[in-house]
Amino acid sequence: MDILSQHRTIRKFTDKSVSKEILDSLITSSIRASTSGNMQLYSLILTQNSDVKDKLVPLHFNQPVALSAPVLITVCADFNRFSLWCLNNKANPGYDNFLSFLTTSIDALLVAQNLCIAAENIGLGICYLGTSTYNADEIINVLQMPKLTFPITTIAIGWPDEIPLKTDRLPIEAVIHSEVYHDYSASAINEFYAMKENLESSKKFVEENHKQHLSQVFTDVRYSKKDNEFFSEKILQTLRKQGFLNE
Amino acid sequence: MDILSQHRTIRKFTDKSVSKEILDSLITSSIRASTSGNMQLYSLILTQNSDVKDKLVPLHFNQPVALSAPVLITVCADFNRFSLWCLNNKANPGYDNFLSFLTTSIDALLVAQNLCIAAENIGLGICYLGTSTYNADEIINVLQMPKLTFPITTIAIGWPDEIPLKTDRLPIEAVIHSEVYHDYSASAINEFYAMKENLESSKKFVEENHKQHLSQVFTDVRYSKKDNEFFSEKILQTLRKQGFLNE
Repeated sequence: MDILSQHRTIRKFTDKSVSKEILDSLITSSIRASTSGNMQLYSLILTQNSDVKDKLVPLHFNQPVALSAPVLITVCADFNRFSLWCLNNKANPGYDNFLSFLTTSIDALLVAQNLCIAAENIGLGICYLGTSTYNADEIINVLQMPKLTFPITTIAIGWPDEIPLKTDRLPIEAVIHSEVYHDYSASAINEFYAMKENLESSKKFVEENHKQHLSQVFTDVRYSKKDNEFFSEKILQTLRKQGFLNE
Repeated sequence: MDILSQHRTIRKFTDKSVSKEILDSLITSSIRASTSGNMQLYSLILTQNSDVKDKLVPLHFNQPVALSAPVLITVCADFNRFSLWCLNNKANPGYDNFLSFLTTSIDALLVAQNLCIAAENIGLGICYLGTSTYNADEIINVLQMPKLTFPITTIAIGWPDEIPLKTDRLPIEAVIHSEVYHDYSASAINEFYAMKENLESSKKFVEENHKQHLSQVFTDVRYSKKDNEFFSEKILQTLRKQGFLNE
């Protein structure tokens, strides 16, 4: 499908704003996504005002794309609205638990991806900010999010000011398993990752980071065990605070 | 966007199979989705063989759609493949933690939604099986999934044998927040859910379940606190077993 195949992440946007009409139209399309029991367990917080944006951007580690985008959409897992509906009608909501967190996160991410496709379909560019989970606690404070909500991802949206090359992907055989999971032999791993390892950009990346192999750039620099463990603990505390791990 | 707006979940499929060529083409499109650090942290397990399907269907609570679909695609969060690549190259992967579980789940769900859109674009029908997380432990056993993988969702795919009506959605104002989260007053909740409550199908649902209000069908019958807590504990144990909560 052409619109999917042409996807590239955009990290540089023009100054042009994205109108309310366009945003409403994208959101109208996006909420047609499948949703658990048709409960629609998500909220979209649209940040365009520079006061709020100035507080959000550092929480996304000052990524230039967060600064450049005219709109940041914080995609929230949200069991708050549904629970309020229950409480208002003498029903007893039981959504302060981990299953409910997963269910609402799934709902939210399907909408997020629909939104991105709808945006790209009219020429807008998007970039996911995976940093949302890392600093969820602080994002929750800035965006005044109540219990039973969580910022599962953020989408930076705007009109592209660049046309980057498409990034590499593994051969589809690397991600497909027939009938059951077939674990990977060392030679299969070597074969599947060979193209990625041999890209000029990968070689440059290894050199710049003074590493021996591309995988070490990931484990030692970009996504280290130490950082992952630090942020894991932080996120679990935030989930507890947001009421999703009431034991 | 038309293809998004026309979405309806399909629960009844014809006997016609979905060819390998079509599945490969859908997957080729779907893996263009954004992925954290281009790590592609997902696997797709395609089940078509009746032996495996017969074991999976009960784990999806024998939903007729799971039985009727010619293909079940178990969408797996997968940090196993990437970690093997690291280990094969003298890098030290540190992905046995909760942040990594979230990152890989996000990656997997964006691909899942792309796959659904690509499928619908050529006339196939899809249904998400949210039951995947409920019985993740048993699904992992049947599909022989290794540590650092988790079945975050399942997509039932096939050629539609029904054209159901589009289901209702809340007005977009219910899910959009400007700048920061604006919590809901009781009157806003009443207004946003009024249309849903007044649908004939909702009224019938309330009556059949001998309840006073639609929300009570959710809290008392479909997604009860007791069930949610039972499955939450089960899922957390599974995440521990899969190596995603190494404390």
